[in-house]
Amino acid sequence: MKQMPTLLDAYKAENRIRSMIRETPLMEAPALARQTGAKSIHLKMECRQHTGAFKARGAANKILSLNKEAGTRGVITFSTGNHGKAVAYMAGRCGIPATVCLSENVPAYRVDMIRRLGAQVAIHGRSQDEAETHYQALIQTHGYTPVVPFDDPLIIAGQGTIAIEILAKLPEAQVLLIPLSGGGLLAGVAMVAKSINPDIHIVGLSIERSPAMVESLKAGKPVQVEEKQSIADSLLGGIGFDNHFTLKMVAQFVDEHLLISEDDIKAGMFYLFDTHRTVAEGAAAVGVGAMLSGRIDVRRKRVVTVVSGGTVDTATYLQIMQEQLERTCHP
Amino acid sequence: MKQMPTLLDAYKAENRIRSMIRETPLMEAPALARQTGAKSIHLKMECRQHTGAFKARGAANKILSLNKEAGTRGVITFSTGNHGKAVAYMAGRCGIPATVCLSENVPAYRVDMIRRLGAQVAIHGRSQDEAETHYQALIQTHGYTPVVPFDDPLIIAGQGTIAIEILAKLPEAQVLLIPLSGGGLLAGVAMVAKSINPDIHIVGLSIERSPAMVESLKAGKPVQVEEKQSIADSLLGGIGFDNHFTLKMVAQFVDEHLLISEDDIKAGMFYLFDTHRTVAEGAAAVGVGAMLSGRIDVRRKRVVTVVSGGTVDTATYLQIMQEQLERTCHP
Repeated sequence: MKQMPTLLDAYKAENRIRSMIRETPLMEAPALARQTGAKSIHLKMECRQHTGAFKARGAANKILSLNKEAGTRGVITFSTGNHGKAVAYMAGRCGIPATVCLSENVPAYRVDMIRRLGAQVAIHGRSQDEAETHYQALIQTHGYTPVVPFDDPLIIAGQGTIAIEILAKLPEAQVLLIPLSGGGLLAGVAMVAKSINPDIHIVGLSIERSPAMVESLKAGKPVQVEEKQSIADSLLGGIGFDNHFTLKMVAQFVDEHLLISEDDIKAGMFYLFDTHRTVAEGAAAVGVGAMLSGRIDVRRKRVVTVVSGGTVDTATYLQIMQEQLERTCHP
Repeated sequence: MKQMPTLLDAYKAENRIRSMIRETPLMEAPALARQTGAKSIHLKMECRQHTGAFKARGAANKILSLNKEAGTRGVITFSTGNHGKAVAYMAGRCGIPATVCLSENVPAYRVDMIRRLGAQVAIHGRSQDEAETHYQALIQTHGYTPVVPFDDPLIIAGQGTIAIEILAKLPEAQVLLIPLSGGGLLAGVAMVAKSINPDIHIVGLSIERSPAMVESLKAGKPVQVEEKQSIADSLLGGIGFDNHFTLKMVAQFVDEHLLISEDDIKAGMFYLFDTHRTVAEGAAAVGVGAMLSGRIDVRRKRVVTVVSGGTVDTATYLQIMQEQLERTCHP
């Protein structure tokens, strides 16, 4: 069995993917700090990463680690969207064929985006888990290398490079607020941050509508939760029944868990648009939403949250912004 | 009289302001290139500059060139907004007192922004020219150094650093599409670009509703035009009756002029939001708007346009995006 990734694996990842990814800005949010009483708040702008989400890091690390033979056969993945885009994009840049398996729940605009990046798309089943079954069959038939969305040491180490960048710029950071679904982002960031600074406080932010990891932590094993719609659609989905890494790593490295409501997510999205002219998807706004609503006390702390992506349907986004604007103007 | 700025002045500016400004991304727009037949289109993302607009460059260059005595007395400016913000911000970072004179036409949200950056605000008159008269009186009384919005060699050289960054990354650029109002941005960018590559084609983009520079070029001297409302409010205003630099430089270095309609500007703003998740103000979207509408033929060319700023009222912006979305869905 493969080993749990370490800080050294994240440093190797950083070196491997450097030329393929963007070092994203760590942007200060002084008005939000004043409003919440924090000493400082910084936004790690992964919404400006290639393909619009942090997923490009893990995908690059995995794909650049393939041997030549595996690269020639190609890669395959299943994904609710951003991971699929990242795999399609990074495979394309490396000249490697890619197949992306999606469930029927994935919005059409996301399917289009993946096709435009040059990957083959295979749509099957009503949930991420059903799409996974179909994808297993394709692996058997074609010998593709699976690039899983989160439960892989190379993927986790790739996402962990975000924490290297954060602590290189802001070593005095005290609290990290990180979106949580399958746990690839959180496991990587938490492992790296705790390895560099054991006193840093790591908070995992799950959505109320799909807290699969939180329920799995309670049960001590992977648990399936009902999939509901959420504006933070990137945070929908389970953690996989055969979870080897992210469940253990989240249990080991994460200090606190919060469940974020749809209203708080929308308020976070509007704040990022109105104050920072940043288009964040729901999943990316959970940290700002949690702070705005007072769900977490950040007084006198130096806080960083990862604004993880910007993939959101234009009409849906504008509708939410309009609702939030009206709520702000006529409270 | 002061000399017209040269390429060397822009290099000195680049060196002087480097630690105070952001090197903004030069972002590729492959879908827009496909749609217009261009070989490539790149967006120079000055909307991500400090204070949300390119104006930070010129202001930094001017303020960092002050001697100690002038710095202690402080600076003053009049501005429709982005220049005032840039002066307030850069003066604040350098510990220099700043006064910003505004006309009554300037939207309240812009006045608030300048106050929040720590500058004194003096509101007077109904046009930029009337605000200028009041500002002359304050200069006499207090000995402030004027930081004018565009007609100053140091300001022009500062804005010219944008072209140094563009050509360092993309020396094969063939066409530059640059917003035009008072001409500080266009004069600086055109002078630098033509000095590095005399064959580059420079297009100035004015708004139909306030083509002061274009009318002045026709007349051979500064001409006042009626101020109408425009969604590209940063491009409103005259070129100053006592214009020494930008009128001559625009006449010398610019190859082509286009007038852009409000509809084309709005279409450009929506495209930048919908495709690039970029919040651009009207003035910043004239280049994309001109290409989308076919007002300029960019087939087989390598094109760069400067997305000059992101200062726009939230409610106004959302209303335009919603209208454009409905137009796209139900044409």
